[in-house]
Amino acid sequence: MAYSGDPIVAEELLFRPVHSLIDQSLHSKLGATTTNGDGFGIGWYSNGPEPAIYKNVDPAWNDENLREIAGRITTPLLFAHIRASTGTPVQRSNCHPFRHDNWLWMHNGALRGFHQIKRELLMAVDPSLFLDIEGSTDSEAFFFLALTFGLTEDPFGAVARAVGFVEKVGRQHDIEYPVQMTVATSDGESTWAFRYSSEHKSRSLFFSTEINALRKLHPEAEILKKAGDETRLIVSEPLGDLPGAWNEVPESAAGVVRPGTDDLRPFEPIAP
Amino acid sequence: MAYSGDPIVAEELLFRPVHSLIDQSLHSKLGATTTNGDGFGIGWYSNGPEPAIYKNVDPAWNDENLREIAGRITTPLLFAHIRASTGTPVQRSNCHPFRHDNWLWMHNGALRGFHQIKRELLMAVDPSLFLDIEGSTDSEAFFFLALTFGLTEDPFGAVARAVGFVEKVGRQHDIEYPVQMTVATSDGESTWAFRYSSEHKSRSLFFSTEINALRKLHPEAEILKKAGDETRLIVSEPLGDLPGAWNEVPESAAGVVRPGTDDLRPFEPIAP
Amino acid sequence: MAYSGDPIVAEELLFRPVHSLIDQSLHSKLGATTTNGDGFGIGWYSNGPEPAIYKNVDPAWNDENLREIAGRITTPLLFAHIRASTGTPVQRSNCHPFRHDNWLWMHNGALRGFHQIKRELLMAVDPSLFLDIEGSTDSEAFFFLALTFGLTEDPFGAVARAVGFVEKVGRQHDIEYPVQMTVATSDGESTWAFRYSSEHKSRSLFFSTEINALRKLHPEAEILKKAGDETRLIVSEPLGDLPGAWNEVPESAAGVVRPGTDDLRPFEPIAP
Amino acid sequence: MAYSGDPIVAEELLFRPVHSLIDQSLHSKLGATTTNGDGFGIGWYSNGPEPAIYKNVDPAWNDENLREIAGRITTPLLFAHIRASTGTPVQRSNCHPFRHDNWLWMHNGALRGFHQIKRELLMAVDPSLFLDIEGSTDSEAFFFLALTFGLTEDPFGAVARAVGFVEKVGRQHDIEYPVQMTVATSDGESTWAFRYSSEHKSRSLFFSTEINALRKLHPEAEILKKAGDETRLIVSEPLGDLPGAWNEVPESAAGVVRPGTDDLRPFEPIAP
Repeated sequence: MAYSGDPIVAEELLFRPVHSLIDQSLHSKLGATTTNGDGFGIGWYSNGPEPAIYKNVDPAWNDENLREIAGRITTPLLFAHIRASTGTPVQRSNCHPFRHDNWLWMHNGALRGFHQIKRELLMAVDPSLFLDIEGSTDSEAFFFLALTFGLTEDPFGAVARAVGFVEKVGRQHDIEYPVQMTVATSDGESTWAFRYSSEHKSRSLFFSTEINALRKLHPEAEILKKAGDETRLIVSEPLGDLPGAWNEVPESAAGVVRPGTDDLRPFEPIAP
Repeated sequence: MAYSGDPIVAEELLFRPVHSLIDQSLHSKLGATTTNGDGFGIGWYSNGPEPAIYKNVDPAWNDENLREIAGRITTPLLFAHIRASTGTPVQRSNCHPFRHDNWLWMHNGALRGFHQIKRELLMAVDPSLFLDIEGSTDSEAFFFLALTFGLTEDPFGAVARAVGFVEKVGRQHDIEYPVQMTVATSDGESTWAFRYSSEHKSRSLFFSTEINALRKLHPEAEILKKAGDETRLIVSEPLGDLPGAWNEVPESAAGVVRPGTDDLRPFEPIAP
Repeated sequence: MAYSGDPIVAEELLFRPVHSLIDQSLHSKLGATTTNGDGFGIGWYSNGPEPAIYKNVDPAWNDENLREIAGRITTPLLFAHIRASTGTPVQRSNCHPFRHDNWLWMHNGALRGFHQIKRELLMAVDPSLFLDIEGSTDSEAFFFLALTFGLTEDPFGAVARAVGFVEKVGRQHDIEYPVQMTVATSDGESTWAFRYSSEHKSRSLFFSTEINALRKLHPEAEILKKAGDETRLIVSEPLGDLPGAWNEVPESAAGVVRPGTDDLRPFEPIAP
Repeated sequence: MAYSGDPIVAEELLFRPVHSLIDQSLHSKLGATTTNGDGFGIGWYSNGPEPAIYKNVDPAWNDENLREIAGRITTPLLFAHIRASTGTPVQRSNCHPFRHDNWLWMHNGALRGFHQIKRELLMAVDPSLFLDIEGSTDSEAFFFLALTFGLTEDPFGAVARAVGFVEKVGRQHDIEYPVQMTVATSDGESTWAFRYSSEHKSRSLFFSTEINALRKLHPEAEILKKAGDETRLIVSEPLGDLPGAWNEVPESAAGVVRPGTDDLRPFEPIAP
């Protein structure tokens, strides 16, 4: 989940809504795996350009410290992720979100056959960035490829080039569908989201309806009165059941949420 | 799960069978809670009268050390438990099986309203035993009540008296159905199992068919050729799908597995 | 360590000063045990009367989440504790500070022979409070005895009565010196500290010199310019080496830090 | 510590001797860092050519599961390691011993400036081996370089070539003393040990006197009567205080312990 908008207490997002993210750990209905108990992480921007991150391998529903902290964090931009490992070890350095300078990154899905292509992918990461890779996941490697291809300058293009590169290397290794992804990434002010897979059957991704429009739809709903005007959520699975609240991001699409005009556009890999 | 029989490598029981105990963590179909990810524990007898225990709060499916150890433990009697917390903290001292001298104990279910009656229950534990209580669960308190009521001398009677006592105290506190339980307990040679609930709708409990009978039913099944003649399993949910392999323990019943004659009988609390 | 004063970022207290609390984990020179690696906890007041707590069994120096959070917590009153277990399990519920409603409690030392007198001490805890005991330490039992004896109304008296009670029970069990303690406790506005032991050879406890006086002593010291006027620290071991900054709490003494006049007075147990 | 000899219960090695390895965690007098609380690992050979490993980030002295298991492991060859991190994350995949097929590897010391040269070192690892690197330590990279340079065929030569390579790359990056090491590695039958540093001031390494000779020295010592004739220990710091029991491995030396003749020889890097 990626939240941006008026400053909000993290507890509201993580523990309050029906089918909150914590409950999602248990029941992940639209997710690819039965249960997501391989770690949890949140990243949030508060004071200063760099975000803080709290990550843990323990399942979110058991993390008493998380509950304590969530009530004391107020932030205008928060990422939250529940991990279902696709093979790499369960350790804090392999939990999302990943951070580099003022950027956060979360990835649901997989770079298939990662074990076979890992060396090539890592060798393509810029040497000055390579030093900062902490863990062993495909998701983190993907992040660092995107950084190498210019994420901080042109996020849409960088991710397209990263995907194009992974697809090329993957196919050289006889991997038919190298990339399955939904990605959220932010620099602290804007949040970019991507939905794409090589097989064109991508995991789910939703964004919330603009708040004023939603208030007109549901004038009685308490939860909307509390929400700030700039509230925007990007989620893997809808939170709650309010009709009209959620919009599916189309296949092969990408968007950006920022103060002012948001943007949704087609997404296509750029082959190297 | 409680295994007794010829010495077996723990890995065979924990990781091999279809719908193994580790997979049960994820999908617990017959269990009361959606997922059992609040800890895992095994206890086993090898050298000497006292069993060893390995317990961990991390979900079983992520525990690499468990996989390592399971391949190196050979034992004729092993208990394995997956915890779904009913309120008390997730910590190693609250994981099953519990141990006292040469006895092991596992309990699925709950002593309802435990928070209200905890003090009375603990006060009823024999002072010499009280010192050995390590955690804060209802299941451990239940074990120590059974010990107080003579578990080491007369397991059937002790558990009946413990249940009777908890029901009495519970009803004094307006708790309608104080006890929900399946219990397995062992002294290293025999294993006792119990299925009972105050509401007479108890969690599931199965025992395996005697091996020779099962071989006659399924002469081709590989897994049965490997199993020793004395193999007996007591489980919450059947492992595998072999027809005729599993027999449900009736409501309000108790039994014992031991070298020689096993025994299955009705179970009724003994009120204090 | 107990800090009270102007709101401060937790990172300043935990990680910055020479011989900071985190470094204290490693080198605890004045502490009774060689290294304090059995858990770490912080409690802090920010929004609302109840404090938040972050506790972990991992050694503080390895806790990346702690570093992350410390930079994002601003608080006028913070407790921080490093645990050296005196026998009870290392688990989050056994880490300090302990919390009850708006009160925090930390205890360095031990109730000797606790294993023998535990049952009697717990039975003396008020039944309505008993339900809230989460762990198995002597320190938490001590807290709940103090609560039972009126901590929220009269902290000095309540702690004196609790110590008197423990000494009496201890001596009945032939424990020569039942109590060794430094204690810090707070209701969110004032902080009380105690230094006492039955053998009159107590662990160390220091309080910081009033800031204005300290600035006059050291007009050039940068760290003092940053500190707020109300800054007051109570510590087990001095932080840093600034001459005149630290004052030892005498043997058998207690004090309170509050906005306005602080107070330091002799401490004597009140026998039951 | 590396033990080889007659099968022994792991508990004897880890918990019994004066200044046992577990106590070494706390007081590491000859080690470079004050306390070694960043993880613990054991690897042992029992059934089959591949060793099992049990590793944990929790300090060894708090690991109840370790105590339980140690009493149930009987092995003729055991590696035990206590980690003091030199910068990389504290996580299970970064704990020693490292394993590859039937080989175990432990390294005390550091590859200095690892962060700068990491990419080059990893690029030099054979692609087929690269896939098996799990963590992010210099020690594991060193292991995989040794494997690349032929550890399984010629351990003395392979380690010499690995050190030579690291020293060359290090000096290209202006690292004056690239390598500080004591290393122990085994294939399940023989154990090789190395002591070397670029600055020729290496961490300590000791091997035990041959048992029969030691018995003649100390005819009364109980511990020697229990020890098997083939007992050989290689340790960072001596266990116990028995005069004549321990022999220091010289600077720039390497040796092998195997059934039959052991061997000690000078060690020199082989530059690429």
